Amino acid sequence: MVKKIVVLGGDGFCGWPTALYLSKQGYEVAIVDNLSRRNIDNELEAGSLTPISPISMRLKTWKHITGLNIAFFNLDICKDYDLLRSFLSEWQPDAIIHFAEQRAAPYSMKSPKHKRYTVNNNVNATHNLLCAIVEAGLDIHVVHSGITGVYGYGTAGMEIPEGYLNVKVNVDGSLRDMKILYPANPGSIYHMTKTLDALMFYYYNKNDGLRITDLHQGIVWGTNTEETEQDIRLVNRFDYDGDYGTVLNRFLMQSALGFPLTVHGTGGQTRAFIHIRNTVQCVKIALENPPKAGEPVEIFNQATETHTISALATKIAALTGAEIAYLKNPRNEAAKNNLRVANEKFVGLGLNMIPLSDNLMKDEVDLARKYVDRCDPTKILCFSKWRNDIQLDSQEEYLRTAKDMKI
Amino acid sequence: MVKKIVVLGGDGFCGWPTALYLSKQGYEVAIVDNLSRRNIDNELEAGSLTPISPISMRLKTWKHITGLNIAFFNLDICKDYDLLRSFLSEWQPDAIIHFAEQRAAPYSMKSPKHKRYTVNNNVNATHNLLCAIVEAGLDIHVVHSGITGVYGYGTAGMEIPEGYLNVKVNVDGSLRDMKILYPANPGSIYHMTKTLDALMFYYYNKNDGLRITDLHQGIVWGTNTEETEQDIRLVNRFDYDGDYGTVLNRFLMQSALGFPLTVHGTGGQTRAFIHIRNTVQCVKIALENPPKAGEPVEIFNQATETHTISALATKIAALTGAEIAYLKNPRNEAAKNNLRVANEKFVGLGLNMIPLSDNLMKDEVDLARKYVDRCDPTKILCFSKWRNDIQLDSQEEYLRTAKDMKI
Repeated sequence: MVKKIVVLGGDGFCGWPTALYLSKQGYEVAIVDNLSRRNIDNELEAGSLTPISPISMRLKTWKHITGLNIAFFNLDICKDYDLLRSFLSEWQPDAIIHFAEQRAAPYSMKSPKHKRYTVNNNVNATHNLLCAIVEAGLDIHVVHSGITGVYGYGTAGMEIPEGYLNVKVNVDGSLRDMKILYPANPGSIYHMTKTLDALMFYYYNKNDGLRITDLHQGIVWGTNTEETEQDIRLVNRFDYDGDYGTVLNRFLMQSALGFPLTVHGTGGQTRAFIHIRNTVQCVKIALENPPKAGEPVEIFNQATETHTISALATKIAALTGAEIAYLKNPRNEAAKNNLRVANEKFVGLGLNMIPLSDNLMKDEVDLARKYVDRCDPTKILCFSKWRNDIQLDSQEEYLRTAKDMKI
Repeated sequence: MVKKIVVLGGDGFCGWPTALYLSKQGYEVAIVDNLSRRNIDNELEAGSLTPISPISMRLKTWKHITGLNIAFFNLDICKDYDLLRSFLSEWQPDAIIHFAEQRAAPYSMKSPKHKRYTVNNNVNATHNLLCAIVEAGLDIHVVHSGITGVYGYGTAGMEIPEGYLNVKVNVDGSLRDMKILYPANPGSIYHMTKTLDALMFYYYNKNDGLRITDLHQGIVWGTNTEETEQDIRLVNRFDYDGDYGTVLNRFLMQSALGFPLTVHGTGGQTRAFIHIRNTVQCVKIALENPPKAGEPVEIFNQATETHTISALATKIAALTGAEIAYLKNPRNEAAKNNLRVANEKFVGLGLNMIPLSDNLMKDEVDLARKYVDRCDPTKILCFSKWRNDIQLDSQEEYLRTAKDMKI
């Protein structure tokens, strides 16, 4: 039975390859997107390194190559509630993949305007979706893209469980077992919005019986999937800028330019990672294993490994010969942390984990080199500060360091 | 030293008596309010039973009686961020009391529109406030009006602690102590917004060092304080309608009309209560005991006693001779629950608790009788349902019951 799927945010970095993968796997897919990520490219004056095509060209190419249709609806789920509800009633999806949130921590910290946009957009987008499903009276499985960062990093030194934490509490002198949502400990306004999402999921599941899966994902690395690499007009985004570029992409860009890799602080921060090809597979597994009616919110950790930032820099430096420069950290975070993330659920359901290998990394190195002329090098450093009183190294100091290194 | 205080939502049921009380106690007070509560009166076609005056008349009367000035700014903190920030920079308050949220659970559940208004208004109001304080670079103590309902009712049978819960977690085989925010378990969209507030407070405290006190308040009973009863033009609101009227006020209104008191479900639901005169005192105690720089969010439980709804009905019935009618419950909640709420902090800081006594209750009975002609009896029942599939008794059935009872 072909299932009808909506991918909210299906024009974005995770949404686009997910839409293609599910289409290829036999799902009937519709993309809903307001193209806000492309507008933010305009605002930041730093677009995707890879030359992404307009959404209609992407979809025509996909149809041409595979014969498969993907529908597209330009709709802002934060602002256009009535359109969203009508769309759901008419399209009657079996499941909705929700990627339609502002997803960069540095962007969320740039200014009061960006903080407020991120909170307003993400909270109302998620709430509108839940509210519309209830109003439409449909039984739709919601799969949401969360983030491992909701847990904070390495609280109490334990392995971070998948969403829920078993604790013991003292009730009138005797210890009693309780299972609770893992206590939220967000590290930015962006991360905070994902912790707010979790409480809205909890409530709508409890009161209205909505079936929801929350995927707490690590940093996604890699660019293309089997589907997006079939034609240049299907290519996925590669963000290298200080706001949307993940640490790995910025390292790759710097090495392609012959600049030093910039590590924030000591580089002792540990993060969880997953390859984009695993991301799309995880979404399919989540779709195929929905919570049953009456069950609580299902939560998966969607990460395959953890690394410190300095270990990552060392890896890229070894591959490319780049130097490493240590810059002041724009984030308000611990200088170092341990991080262990449980992922038994996806592994148990058959996820074939793709490790961060030199081989796959070389594809990314090649990609960065291929499109190096499309890069604006002044956009790579992160100047979005977590607090006004944080002092950063300037672009000029960084470039001087690069020069001292005879670059 | 006179301290400068802003009361956000200072025209509302809790905000107005708080503003007067703090003015009387020597604080320099400014009220910020967009008068949204009066507009909701218009929408619901059910105003305050007591004839409240326009805010300018209220303030002129206060000045006339006491010689004290209270400033007023008509400003929507959800929509007018730039005005809010400028106001804070110019007025430079030492503390802000934040009552500026939609505060009725039934109103928040009336329709998708009301759910969405409550989430959008409450989340953005609180976030704008926190964001503006950081942008203005001011050290302002925020005192927020939360609700005991964020805890859920009677989780695990324990006494509900003040905001934080000590738990033990298994870390690699040994039990370790953790202190966490008490796990949120909201019972309506309105309550959910207060749990979202708590996470925003947590984050802004952690990242920006904001000093915040969250007051988890029970159901407020009583109408007037020493200040508001000095002149009819200072009288406080008395809401009796199914959306904004608390259970006690609706009982009082029904008894004044000679109608049966309507208990939802079994009446076994236990709730926490506090008198409005204690509310204003608690706010002052919270103001005088702010968290110090670097300390976590301070949380007080602001409730003095708990009662089941049926016990409350029995009490009012005994006082007034009213009958009791049991109606289907519009809420999605347990038929009965135990509830114990710790309140050692306020008691330790000198709160003189006002019990729900027959004497004070008689003042309220008299008030309801005095203004009975201003009441629209068709507005008392609650028709806001927690789920579409909940079946309610109709107004006609209720009135027939009343008639069968020879009313």
